[in-house]
Amino acid sequence: MNGVSYQPVRSDEEVTTGAPLAARILAKIDLDDGDILVVPQKVVSKAEGRCVRLDGVTPSARAVDLARTVGKPPELVEVILAESRRVVRAAPGVLIVETSHGFVCANGGVDRSNVKEGWVCLLPEEPDRSAQQLRQHLESATGVRIGVVVSDTFGRPWRLGQQDVAVGASGVLSLLDLRGTLDRLGRRLEVSELAIADGIAAGAGLLMGKREGVIAVRARGLSEFMGDGSVRDLLRPAKDDLFR
Amino acid sequence: MNGVSYQPVRSDEEVTTGAPLAARILAKIDLDDGDILVVPQKVVSKAEGRCVRLDGVTPSARAVDLARTVGKPPELVEVILAESRRVVRAAPGVLIVETSHGFVCANGGVDRSNVKEGWVCLLPEEPDRSAQQLRQHLESATGVRIGVVVSDTFGRPWRLGQQDVAVGASGVLSLLDLRGTLDRLGRRLEVSELAIADGIAAGAGLLMGKREGVIAVRARGLSEFMGDGSVRDLLRPAKDDLFR
Repeated sequence: MNGVSYQPVRSDEEVTTGAPLAARILAKIDLDDGDILVVPQKVVSKAEGRCVRLDGVTPSARAVDLARTVGKPPELVEVILAESRRVVRAAPGVLIVETSHGFVCANGGVDRSNVKEGWVCLLPEEPDRSAQQLRQHLESATGVRIGVVVSDTFGRPWRLGQQDVAVGASGVLSLLDLRGTLDRLGRRLEVSELAIADGIAAGAGLLMGKREGVIAVRARGLSEFMGDGSVRDLLRPAKDDLFR
Repeated sequence: MNGVSYQPVRSDEEVTTGAPLAARILAKIDLDDGDILVVPQKVVSKAEGRCVRLDGVTPSARAVDLARTVGKPPELVEVILAESRRVVRAAPGVLIVETSHGFVCANGGVDRSNVKEGWVCLLPEEPDRSAQQLRQHLESATGVRIGVVVSDTFGRPWRLGQQDVAVGASGVLSLLDLRGTLDRLGRRLEVSELAIADGIAAGAGLLMGKREGVIAVRARGLSEFMGDGSVRDLLRPAKDDLFR
């Protein structure tokens, strides 16, 4: 593989529902065959209208209870529970759930930064589909073949700090299976599967300052990782997970 | 931030103990002020002679016992235990420990790929120091100011696939604290600390094929993340960890 480059795509206009995201991206940057475009979840969710006004939410008894444990507003906890299929950990200041998509993350991906006061932003309903639709728009406008990754910023156990991971992918190999590949000395590899889409999201994430209005990052030089992938490939089944 | 680029540094010669790594890197690539060089742990460990011949290892009773549980050779388990301060999870095929450095990872970072038959390769004794020494050699040879990250490929809970993370850093801000920073709409950010060194390692990891003889990756365009960091900044204290 030769070099890889990441280029940020900035826009000062606020993304709103129905905003023609593909057109806005293409107004700012060109795309070539093999490019992979990383788009932050917040941008996709806003374009899809996945925002909720907290004062229109009536918390259930369960949400009120859990809100007390974690020290978060009951309306917010209600929205998080509605996005979740199970609570993984609840402690003061911490609410880690498994979302309906299968992501294990803090607050079910629901967050309040860069969202209007009193509102919260949810993950896209089907982030793979969001990636696929954006990819189709971009490909039909340009005639080139690209990949799209939708990213979000998650914490992780064991290590401090958050990092961008893929929550949606289209046209990108999410997971590269190396089992059976031999190393330089002709032996079987111990590293067996590489989380490609997460690596691309993490690399792009370094260019997404939280204030700078980056609506996408173009990764160039990773065309060997194009293929039919889904973020579902990256989800460890709960029954195989020793930490859930 | 403008664009970021990653360039692989390849070498076909096998890295051996005492190999002048800095000179080999500089024979292949130029360095500018602000570049960050990512070097795989395996390359650093081999240069430091951190390899062990398994048939010279006598497994303790505890290692023999644990080897039975996890289905790995007792000699290998003995080496892993010697690198560890505690076992986090043991199950058939899986041995996750906390290393003496504080990393939680499979097999204590001990691995057999790209190592001579019958030998295993350990993590550097003090990977931050390894990064610092390599940085000093590179800086004094070139007169430029750079950062160095030592990376390794770790699995993670909840998600499938492995990803490169930082195990050593020098001249790089490992963790960027955003607490108190305001978002575009003037509100406090929910994402509070970014794992910068891990993001750089992950981005570079996409260029480190497991067979291709990549001895380093040069990241350019990330100079805003230079600073005094240590991988210790990235280690979540066990008492604050809900998953250990």
